[in-house]
Amino acid sequence: MGIILQKFGGTSVGSTEKIKQAAKKIIATVEAGHEVVAVVSAMGKQTDELVALAAGITERPSKREMDVLLTTGEQVTISLLAMALQEEGYEAQSFTGWQAGIETEPVHGNARIAAIDPQQLQNSLQAGKIPIVAGFQGVTTEQHITTLGRGGSDTTAVALAAVLRADVCEIYTDVSGVYTADPRVIPTAQKLKRISYDEMLELANLGAGVLHPRAVEFAKNYGITLEVRNSASDERGTIVEEDVQMENGTIVRGLAFEGNVTKLTLRQLPSREDTLANVFTLLAQHGINVDIIIQSVNEEKTDLSFSIDSTLLTETVSLLTSHQASLGYEKLIEQGELAKVSIVGSGMISNHGVAATMFRALAEKNVFIKMVSTSEIKVSAVVPQADMVKAIETLHDVFQLDAREVVPS
Amino acid sequence: MGIILQKFGGTSVGSTEKIKQAAKKIIATVEAGHEVVAVVSAMGKQTDELVALAAGITERPSKREMDVLLTTGEQVTISLLAMALQEEGYEAQSFTGWQAGIETEPVHGNARIAAIDPQQLQNSLQAGKIPIVAGFQGVTTEQHITTLGRGGSDTTAVALAAVLRADVCEIYTDVSGVYTADPRVIPTAQKLKRISYDEMLELANLGAGVLHPRAVEFAKNYGITLEVRNSASDERGTIVEEDVQMENGTIVRGLAFEGNVTKLTLRQLPSREDTLANVFTLLAQHGINVDIIIQSVNEEKTDLSFSIDSTLLTETVSLLTSHQASLGYEKLIEQGELAKVSIVGSGMISNHGVAATMFRALAEKNVFIKMVSTSEIKVSAVVPQADMVKAIETLHDVFQLDAREVVPS
Repeated sequence: MGIILQKFGGTSVGSTEKIKQAAKKIIATVEAGHEVVAVVSAMGKQTDELVALAAGITERPSKREMDVLLTTGEQVTISLLAMALQEEGYEAQSFTGWQAGIETEPVHGNARIAAIDPQQLQNSLQAGKIPIVAGFQGVTTEQHITTLGRGGSDTTAVALAAVLRADVCEIYTDVSGVYTADPRVIPTAQKLKRISYDEMLELANLGAGVLHPRAVEFAKNYGITLEVRNSASDERGTIVEEDVQMENGTIVRGLAFEGNVTKLTLRQLPSREDTLANVFTLLAQHGINVDIIIQSVNEEKTDLSFSIDSTLLTETVSLLTSHQASLGYEKLIEQGELAKVSIVGSGMISNHGVAATMFRALAEKNVFIKMVSTSEIKVSAVVPQADMVKAIETLHDVFQLDAREVVPS
Repeated sequence: MGIILQKFGGTSVGSTEKIKQAAKKIIATVEAGHEVVAVVSAMGKQTDELVALAAGITERPSKREMDVLLTTGEQVTISLLAMALQEEGYEAQSFTGWQAGIETEPVHGNARIAAIDPQQLQNSLQAGKIPIVAGFQGVTTEQHITTLGRGGSDTTAVALAAVLRADVCEIYTDVSGVYTADPRVIPTAQKLKRISYDEMLELANLGAGVLHPRAVEFAKNYGITLEVRNSASDERGTIVEEDVQMENGTIVRGLAFEGNVTKLTLRQLPSREDTLANVFTLLAQHGINVDIIIQSVNEEKTDLSFSIDSTLLTETVSLLTSHQASLGYEKLIEQGELAKVSIVGSGMISNHGVAATMFRALAEKNVFIKMVSTSEIKVSAVVPQADMVKAIETLHDVFQLDAREVVPS
């Protein structure tokens, strides 16, 4: 009957009613004999409201002051959740990031956790209280308030689970777990009972959106078992852990997909050692994230293709065009209205026919593949956006993701 | 060219536009060659919104968690005001209560400042920055967040002015200074150029509402010159300081008044040493504030009258009734719909005719005085609420408060 870390995201604490629901989850866990530490995000749309306030002052707020502003969001939630527990007769105590001993590196807007001093939280637990911790925030050794950036509350929860040696870190959200594909698009998608860190990491990076990749990596590194659960129901969610026992048939565990992809091609780059470095250093310096990269070297000239989010297209094209001379390419070709569909599963490592099955299935449906990228447990294909749904329906069917319990519990 | 402390109240930072105005005040002072430290309250109605959120959770929120909740209000303002200054090209840095080194006693909701470590603020000033400090809040040695209660931001400003040895502490609000009477009621009321701490204290305690009495006491104890100013204009306000030079004629400096007063009388109490103590200890234990007290001892029995805020009437009567046997009184008489009108001026000390002038003037207008209370620099009379405005108009006229510059500058 050890410690359970429970993290409630913004939609799970989006109103006073939902905060009371979250309190009931915590109470049920306490009554089952566990010690609970809760981590919460800001209430639903509150972050947007705070951002709008700053926008009323300046178009370029300093990152330090944005951190001071945004961290009030979770501070509101911790106090309200503590009150909700007290109202039900349970002793609870709220902790901001600095009160919880969460020290970060001296970076604003996207800091990493440097150290955690859990003494205050442990004192609170030993006094029989339920600590409620503000996620997403920390403090530097110089006492500046910092935030952890996107997915920060997940990261806070996992980090506290590690330092407090919690048995499990439950992530409450508005979906019931991790699915073989987005159920809003594929109605027959199945909830996974278990998934490995690496599979979750691929799905998270691919935009499945349930858990932030940083938090998953952290959990993997410290061996923290995660469970993604729905805050509005009592059903079990999806457990994320190491060494998932596989059925033979479940090579592909899930599908991910995202639209709004553009492919750019630089034709006839000079074939030199620093060609790739020059292109991608330039893009990185301007904060342009590149996803899939394909290079084909052809004697003295290289053709280089890569995919970006379509919202970055104008900026990227203007940047590359203004550096055409120094980069030395002959022509820039853009191709928009694309989408990325991916299959994920650790069973792929030992099953090389998976990619072939994927490509054949798409070909039979006349889905033209523009780019391919693979990792040990993932195959991604860039296809026309108009064919995205057809592609994932086809793959969900071909890999029999809707047929049965995907993983034995 | 020393340090100037500038405090902006809730109405002076009630919107992003007003925050930009406050920034302009600060910049003008900096450009005049001063170092500025600003103290701010929560934006206008934000505290009410936070209180409403808590009310959605529980009817009796814990004081600790209310402090955690409410202190987010000033934290929002400090970040926005810092951004507004940065937008204009000035280096500013926000400080929450704990970041500013404001340590309080371990009490929630109404803590007093125990100590201030100004090191971080001094570092900020030395680095050429403008520190923006959250008023109303502090931290205990055990790292709990506390609030200073009503008028807390004024108190923060004056305390920082003391510890930083500021030349003056400017209190920006939505009125232009301290008036001889409330200008909304007495249109001919005059703004005072100067007023003494003691006079301000009496006016503040009497509900003139511009400055909180705690802050005035603090300023008096540490000799901090205050200036009450309007955040929406550039005119000079009212200076509050020691040893104001008096004109002969200006015995009465200002009027204060408040309605909603009820007089309670306990008839035929036993005349014992502990009678008063018993009554007022009982009331104090239930948080009932008593204002004017009148006692008339008559051989073995005592009649005791006192005034309370009418909103406390039901609770007070029920409390006294349930203790009738132990207190030993024969009858409880209540008289509601009363008001208190007061004249204030340090010149009264050496002019005993002032009270007589007041009583005669009211009598001539047929205003019946129900209770009287006096201090060295104040005379208060409780009168029927229906006569309140007539009473203050009469007094404003009799003491010639609308006739001229009340104090030479």
